[in-house]
Amino acid sequence: MAKKAPRRTAERILETALDLFNRFGEPNVSTTAISAALGISPGNLYYHYPAKDELVNALFQRCDSALSELLASGGEVQDVEGAWCWMHSLFERVWQYRFLYRDLNHLLSRNRLLEAHFPALQQRITQSLQAMLRSMCKTSLKLDSAEVDATATRMAVLLTYWLSFEYVRDPRHALEPDKAQAAMVRGVHHALSLLSPGLAPQQRQHLQQLAGASASLNAQARDPSPA
Amino acid sequence: MAKKAPRRTAERILETALDLFNRFGEPNVSTTAISAALGISPGNLYYHYPAKDELVNALFQRCDSALSELLASGGEVQDVEGAWCWMHSLFERVWQYRFLYRDLNHLLSRNRLLEAHFPALQQRITQSLQAMLRSMCKTSLKLDSAEVDATATRMAVLLTYWLSFEYVRDPRHALEPDKAQAAMVRGVHHALSLLSPGLAPQQRQHLQQLAGASASLNAQARDPSPA
Repeated sequence: MAKKAPRRTAERILETALDLFNRFGEPNVSTTAISAALGISPGNLYYHYPAKDELVNALFQRCDSALSELLASGGEVQDVEGAWCWMHSLFERVWQYRFLYRDLNHLLSRNRLLEAHFPALQQRITQSLQAMLRSMCKTSLKLDSAEVDATATRMAVLLTYWLSFEYVRDPRHALEPDKAQAAMVRGVHHALSLLSPGLAPQQRQHLQQLAGASASLNAQARDPSPA
Repeated sequence: MAKKAPRRTAERILETALDLFNRFGEPNVSTTAISAALGISPGNLYYHYPAKDELVNALFQRCDSALSELLASGGEVQDVEGAWCWMHSLFERVWQYRFLYRDLNHLLSRNRLLEAHFPALQQRITQSLQAMLRSMCKTSLKLDSAEVDATATRMAVLLTYWLSFEYVRDPRHALEPDKAQAAMVRGVHHALSLLSPGLAPQQRQHLQQLAGASASLNAQARDPSPA
C-alpha cells in the first residue's frame, strides 16, 4: 500500500490543478496555491511536478487523449442525431479542459510542448470533422468536397471558441457550472446549423427538434418546478 | 511648442505600447519594457500612465471608437461586394488591436473597464452584423429573421476568433505581418460564406470571384515576380 502513495498524490495534484486552472485561469494559479488547496507542502508538489508547465503538459496530454478517443469515430457518424451526440461529446471535452482554451494563445506562446502538439491536435479535429461530413454525405447531407473542407474548418472554430464567446458576452456568469450545459447545447446547435442548407428536409427538422429538446431539458434541470 | 510635449509623449507611449502588446502579448510586456523601447524613464511613463491597465484602457477605447465608426454603416451594405469591403475593414480593426483579442478572456477577468465595456461592444458588433444582413435581405439575400440572428452570431464568432485560429494552426508564423493580409482574406471569406446558401446565384458567384481576386492580389504582393 505504501508504494502507491506517491502515485495517488501525483493524481490528486493533477485533479486539483485542473480544477483551479479551470476556475481561475492558469496564469492566475500558482503552484503554491495548488499545494495549499491540497494541504501538502510546496516541496511535496515540487517532488512530483518541478515546474507549473509540467502540470500543464500532463493535463494537455489527458485532454489530447480524451479528444483523440472521440476523433477516431468521426467517420462513423451517419445522421443528424449521431452528429449531435458526437459534437456534444467534443464540446464536453473542451469544457472539461477549458483552461487550455481560455488562454490558448498565451499558453502556445510560452509552452514548447503545447506549441509543438496543439496545432497537430487542432488539425486532427478538423480532419475528423471532415470525416464526419463525408460520412453524412453518403446518406443525409449534400456538400461538395470544397464545402466539406470549409465547413469542417468553421465547425472547428466554433468548437474551439464557442465557450470563450459566451464568456465574452457575460464574463461574470456565462461559464458558471450551472450555465455550462446550456452554453454547450448552443455551441452544438450553431456548429450543426452550418449543415442545414445541405441537409435533407427531414434531417433539418430533426436538428431543430434536437436543439429544442436539449434546451428544454436544460431549463428543467436548472428549475425542476417551473411556474 | 513646449506645452505640446507632454501630449506628444503620451501619444508616443500609447503607440509603442500598442506595438509591443501586439507583438508579444500584453501579459508579456511590462511598463519598464515600454519605457525602455521609447528611451524615456519609467518615472516619465508613470507620470502619463500610472498603471499598465491605464494603457490597456486607453487602447481599448481607441479600438472601440475605430470599430464603432464602422458599425454605424452596417445597415448600408447592399450586396456581396459592399459586404466584402465592410467585413474586411472590420477584420483590419481587429488586426490593428489584436492584443485585446489574443488574451481576451484573461483581460476580461482582471480589468474592470474591459469587463464592463467589451461585452457591450461585442453586442453592438452582432447587432450591426444583423443590420447588414437585413439590409442585404432587401435585395440579394434570403434569410428568415431567426436565421439573420443566428448567422450574425456565427459571423461575430469568426470575426472575434479567426486570427486566433490561424495562430493556433501555426504559432510561429501565422500572424507575422506579411501573413496578415492573407489571413484576413480567409477570415472574410469564411464569414461571408455563411451567407452562400441564401445568396442569389450571381451574388454567390461574385463572392467566389472576390475571394479569388483577393487571394491572388496577396500572393502577388508577397512575391512580385512569380516563377
